[in-house]
Amino acid sequence: MKNQMRIAVIGLGAVGRGVVTTLDRMQREGNLACSISAVSDSKSALIAQDGIDIPAMLRRKAENGICGDTTLNSKDVVENAPYDILVEVSPTDVLSAEPATEYIKTALSRGAHVVTSNKGPIALHYQEILALAKEHAVSLRYEATVAGAIPILHVLEHDLIGNKIHALYGILNGTCNYILTRMSEEGLTYPQALEEARKLGYAEADPSADVKGTDAATKIVILANTIFGKSISLNDMSITGIDHVTDDALRLAAGHDSTIRLIGEIIPEKNIYRVSPRVLPKNHSLVVDGSLNAITIKTDLAGDLTFIGKGAGSLETTSAIISDIFYILKDIR
Amino acid sequence: MKNQMRIAVIGLGAVGRGVVTTLDRMQREGNLACSISAVSDSKSALIAQDGIDIPAMLRRKAENGICGDTTLNSKDVVENAPYDILVEVSPTDVLSAEPATEYIKTALSRGAHVVTSNKGPIALHYQEILALAKEHAVSLRYEATVAGAIPILHVLEHDLIGNKIHALYGILNGTCNYILTRMSEEGLTYPQALEEARKLGYAEADPSADVKGTDAATKIVILANTIFGKSISLNDMSITGIDHVTDDALRLAAGHDSTIRLIGEIIPEKNIYRVSPRVLPKNHSLVVDGSLNAITIKTDLAGDLTFIGKGAGSLETTSAIISDIFYILKDIR
Repeated sequence: MKNQMRIAVIGLGAVGRGVVTTLDRMQREGNLACSISAVSDSKSALIAQDGIDIPAMLRRKAENGICGDTTLNSKDVVENAPYDILVEVSPTDVLSAEPATEYIKTALSRGAHVVTSNKGPIALHYQEILALAKEHAVSLRYEATVAGAIPILHVLEHDLIGNKIHALYGILNGTCNYILTRMSEEGLTYPQALEEARKLGYAEADPSADVKGTDAATKIVILANTIFGKSISLNDMSITGIDHVTDDALRLAAGHDSTIRLIGEIIPEKNIYRVSPRVLPKNHSLVVDGSLNAITIKTDLAGDLTFIGKGAGSLETTSAIISDIFYILKDIR
Repeated sequence: MKNQMRIAVIGLGAVGRGVVTTLDRMQREGNLACSISAVSDSKSALIAQDGIDIPAMLRRKAENGICGDTTLNSKDVVENAPYDILVEVSPTDVLSAEPATEYIKTALSRGAHVVTSNKGPIALHYQEILALAKEHAVSLRYEATVAGAIPILHVLEHDLIGNKIHALYGILNGTCNYILTRMSEEGLTYPQALEEARKLGYAEADPSADVKGTDAATKIVILANTIFGKSISLNDMSITGIDHVTDDALRLAAGHDSTIRLIGEIIPEKNIYRVSPRVLPKNHSLVVDGSLNAITIKTDLAGDLTFIGKGAGSLETTSAIISDIFYILKDIR
């Protein structure tokens, strides 16, 4: 393990705070040799070459809403702070992929490794930022962008290395899964279940990215391009959301001991990339309840493997980011 | 990646043949920089400093039943052949853990990395062989010993690195799961289901290691000692098998939409290590059918994660061994 890598964290929402808290704990426990040299939130930034006092910084942020110096911002940190790894967890629009993409490109160009939880940069600009990472011989990691706490990218990259992956099927959007679960189990109509998901904070005010399948499709694009060596965009995909799934359709499925789930699918050999509602037997391993995610991989050696876990949430995202940092500290490419 | 590591494979049953075939394919495809410098079966061995012609060796073995020179044996390979990694997949009794333990110790003492699929050496002699590996600064890997193709050790070691693991629950013996599935679904008695499992090759002539819970408990010992830093043996465990589970008990469970499965359990904070039949709701994620394995890990950050896959089989074991070799080639500790 390299000695005392310096980490900068851009964004101190629940995920950023989870990351610095966990790194601080692991460092105190002697489990991770790194220091946090810079952090930024939407209003300020803090840079400390010798390592930030994380508990003091978090107390300050809880009291005043700012982490550091208001004359500094995220851009200053990315461009000028001393760091070996940039953890980019800024609030970033998935469609524009900014400001995350600019931050990532700057960090890679400075010769720093990058970990991000933002889907936009990976889904839209993977080739470009991968080329930058290669040019500067640094790592780019994004485990948190697909299926939250399920380590699907690491498993595909490393643990199934000897396998041919024939197909990947997954529930990659917890909001849709919650809505379909409630329609199926409680007989709610789509508008009723959507309203409930909104009240619980699972669905946004504008739920289209979730319910029209775009979010799940974005994750399929990331998997296809990064793991399967493809070069596709959302335009290359067949995408059907759940917004036209009726309670009648779910009742019909229930009559056959089945239900409906939104399934993302990759069949690499046939260049099939699809997101659509599917009828599945109720005891199918992909039929998970509530806001869970689930992925089945069909392989030649390992057979079928299924992974089930929380697809979103700040702690789950933190877990994925910490493992990415660990892979970088261990120089695992 | 290190250049052209030399691999010796001890044992050319279905697993050993799967390993050399897969390595040969990956090497031809340019995906792995290694060569196979030695192989052995129960009657002969073959050593070739510059790399063995694998397809020719396998043809010879298929025709004559031997892989090489009958004046050489596995011990000669382990002690004298040139290799950087020993893949130890010899037929080894789990109770005596020999000859695997002797091979592993010799290889580690020679400064070679070791990958094994044999549970015995890890369950019985972990501290001793780990000390040897540390002394010689080499890796010891055994992903195949627990839950077959499910990369449970790698996930716990690397992907959940920032997490506290509160508990691990798992179906770790496919034979018991097959028997319980058949009793539950078809109303078979225990003797009927056991007989069926025997005919299908899932159960041995003497099925005690499986049905009395010892095999599942051995995997709990491996997980407890290697991942959770404990130092336990089978004697420290509470172990109840499935041989006293009646069809009446399963019918009673079915009346409550539940069933019975043999669950291995670790609660590290409370030093609880247990294998016992448990009543679980039929829609519980650990209720998998047939000879599958399934593991749920309860964590502080990543929440609950469940992994389902084949727990045994030569291809599945091959998959786990190849990933172990990959981790060694990448110097992932």
